[in-house]
Amino acid sequence: MAPRGEIPEIPPKPSSGVTIVPQIKPDGPQAFPDAEKANLPVFTMDYTRIQIPFEITLWVLLASFAKIGFHVYHKITIWVPESCLLISIGLIVGAIMYSVNEEPPAVLTTNVFFLYMLPPIVLDSGYFMPTRPFFENIGTVLWFAVVGTLWNSIGIGMSLFAICQIEAFGVQEINLQENLLFATIISAVDPVAVLSVFEDVSVNEQLYIVVFGECLFNDAVTVVLYNMFNFVAEMPVVEPVDVFLGVARFFVVGLGGMGFGILFGFVAAFTTRFTSKVREIEPLFIFMYSYLAYLVAELFAISSIMAIVTCALTMKYYVEENVSQRSCTTIRHVVKMLGSISETLIFFFLGVVTITTEHEWNWGYILFTLLFAFVWRGLGVLVLTQIINPFRTIPFNLKDQFGLAYGGLRGAISFALVFTLPDNIGRKKLFVTATITIILFTVFLQGISIRPLIEFINCPQNKPQP
Amino acid sequence: MAPRGEIPEIPPKPSSGVTIVPQIKPDGPQAFPDAEKANLPVFTMDYTRIQIPFEITLWVLLASFAKIGFHVYHKITIWVPESCLLISIGLIVGAIMYSVNEEPPAVLTTNVFFLYMLPPIVLDSGYFMPTRPFFENIGTVLWFAVVGTLWNSIGIGMSLFAICQIEAFGVQEINLQENLLFATIISAVDPVAVLSVFEDVSVNEQLYIVVFGECLFNDAVTVVLYNMFNFVAEMPVVEPVDVFLGVARFFVVGLGGMGFGILFGFVAAFTTRFTSKVREIEPLFIFMYSYLAYLVAELFAISSIMAIVTCALTMKYYVEENVSQRSCTTIRHVVKMLGSISETLIFFFLGVVTITTEHEWNWGYILFTLLFAFVWRGLGVLVLTQIINPFRTIPFNLKDQFGLAYGGLRGAISFALVFTLPDNIGRKKLFVTATITIILFTVFLQGISIRPLIEFINCPQNKPQP
Repeated sequence: MAPRGEIPEIPPKPSSGVTIVPQIKPDGPQAFPDAEKANLPVFTMDYTRIQIPFEITLWVLLASFAKIGFHVYHKITIWVPESCLLISIGLIVGAIMYSVNEEPPAVLTTNVFFLYMLPPIVLDSGYFMPTRPFFENIGTVLWFAVVGTLWNSIGIGMSLFAICQIEAFGVQEINLQENLLFATIISAVDPVAVLSVFEDVSVNEQLYIVVFGECLFNDAVTVVLYNMFNFVAEMPVVEPVDVFLGVARFFVVGLGGMGFGILFGFVAAFTTRFTSKVREIEPLFIFMYSYLAYLVAELFAISSIMAIVTCALTMKYYVEENVSQRSCTTIRHVVKMLGSISETLIFFFLGVVTITTEHEWNWGYILFTLLFAFVWRGLGVLVLTQIINPFRTIPFNLKDQFGLAYGGLRGAISFALVFTLPDNIGRKKLFVTATITIILFTVFLQGISIRPLIEFINCPQNKPQP
Repeated sequence: MAPRGEIPEIPPKPSSGVTIVPQIKPDGPQAFPDAEKANLPVFTMDYTRIQIPFEITLWVLLASFAKIGFHVYHKITIWVPESCLLISIGLIVGAIMYSVNEEPPAVLTTNVFFLYMLPPIVLDSGYFMPTRPFFENIGTVLWFAVVGTLWNSIGIGMSLFAICQIEAFGVQEINLQENLLFATIISAVDPVAVLSVFEDVSVNEQLYIVVFGECLFNDAVTVVLYNMFNFVAEMPVVEPVDVFLGVARFFVVGLGGMGFGILFGFVAAFTTRFTSKVREIEPLFIFMYSYLAYLVAELFAISSIMAIVTCALTMKYYVEENVSQRSCTTIRHVVKMLGSISETLIFFFLGVVTITTEHEWNWGYILFTLLFAFVWRGLGVLVLTQIINPFRTIPFNLKDQFGLAYGGLRGAISFALVFTLPDNIGRKKLFVTATITIILFTVFLQGISIRPLIEFINCPQNKPQP
């Protein structure tokens, strides 16, 4: 049918020397090879043009297939959390890509993570937050989120700085500011990792909501501390006014995020009063306004996670009253769907990038990081619970405290933050390696062992295990 | 609260000399001004980082507001189709942007149109295609789509070439190939424009399905002709084998698109058999597979519209049997929602770009283009109906023929194609102006007058007018 038609090879990179399809204009829809006296071609091919949407679609499909696979063989996910399985698949794919010298996927840059992959997950969390138990525990949540994160960051940072003074480890040049910066990065308990494990494990509601809330709100603290230490790391001298400004900034970041969230939430609720004639685009408003809240918060460098969670919480009841039943179903389903696929992709990419990134291994520094992260989290929960317990209707018992401490999984937020470290930090590669180690350690070891341990110490659970 | 905190101005462009927020790394999440001995800033701002998603969100919101507005004042849309109103708003926004010397939005490039904005619209059309009447009229649809488009392209192209010989118009240097190329571009009857008018007007189902089908399938013919004339325009001599290859290519484009569509449709239908445990991501498969069909077709430069329509038609019934009720609602709602918002955005941008693009006006050439487009469409419908009528169960009467001829609105497809013309065509600006003129002329004049005219000649309608 096509005797002289040729299928040209896929050009490996846009900038490769061999341009198979020299288009007259790079964005022409279907251009033709412009060879010397060619006949009319019957087949043409232009991969670079569709590369970005095509590869994104393929990654999403791959992640969806993984999810189907886990649920077809349901026995695995009872004992191993889905996040661990996804990271493992990512590690395998990364190893394959590394062995054939393939470039890592350019998808998980920090910007892509913060602007496109994190918002759907947090929107999902915020939209389906059990509002009543959350507000009943808001004091405890804030207590753990704010004071707990400060405690962890400063505790781990100081201890690591002390370790750096030991000559044998060869990390003397890491100063106090850099240690604190690194400690802040790995103090962020990750909503994605924790929720995915806790949902699989089904702990009691009190515990769930406190860890959940802590994850969502320690973002504000982490962002402020990260920026502060990042700034301070290059400051010749720290004046007292900077301490005051740091505290002021903390309030700006936290309350500002909340303010934007409430504002956009109410605007969204108000807008849905006028959509009774355009039911087909109703759900769009929910997504657009939440995303706008998130983006505007990012613009002003205030807590975007806080903004989108508050926005979702604010608008949810008004919106669900205003929109049609079908729109309501669509909103809930799409929020869940986007959150679910983003989460899957993040763990998957985490595995891939673990293999394809450059590492610097230092036994002493990394093992002490693991130890301190574990110890300070445990100590923090013990001390903070003692202080908060008298104010609680249902005080936390020892088993709850174990769940709180052991549920402090690190994840994609730490992972994304460590790559944003300025390049003038000498041991950046070591920090990257240490962060990835602590993520894998907590997600795999704690993630897999948390269910047997909780069953063993007989934490009160909501439903009996199958 | 923040005595020394400063809100830096938004940098107007990424490349502007004044960098307000000199980040250490461009993709850091929240970077700090690095001025000489600055205090810890309480506010920071970094617009370029969030620019792309932020502006897309704002455009979508603006388009959604426009849609709400039209339906709140419902009386307008009875007489003026929504597409006209949207183009008008676009013209106003374009004029404002032009007067303040703002850059036009970089959003409506040809690639963005073909890869992101067209697929949702065509998926919407394909997914909600009334299957039974469509297949009952498939012969007529293909007849008009294939022969009709050929007729129009060659007729208009030849006539315009004849006009070019008249010295007074000053367009002698436009040769036959360029005229045929241009004629192909403006022969594509646009699904977006036609459907949006016909839905508002509510014509009889026979007529609707034939114009609808013609729009969807003349894409294949237009793409082949466009590529062929584009190629031939630079060929020193046209050999007989090229004619044969052109015919071969036509079958490859049409049947290839259909083949990919059926393939991906069945794969999608098959996949949904295994999603009973992961209901939350079920709808994703529908979107991913349809989009993949579209992208793969684009990759091989075959009819992507054909591919996605066939894919939607193939999978629809299987998928809706396999997925849950909630997933089904979500799929339908999201398909409608994405299609609706894409369509709104396209008309809107069409208005904006009409103002902000460079024009070349030539009374003779443009008026004759309008005339020939109208005459050849009318003649074509008359002749083609005479030939097809004996084979039809319900032959078209004169009123139907009027509807068919008058419903040949041009729209965004012509608009996008004309911008892909190679720059070595001397009178490209004239072609752009002529294309925009014929789009505005058909959408406004024919779009607005079609309802009163159809009512006047009393075309059999489905429902009485209010």
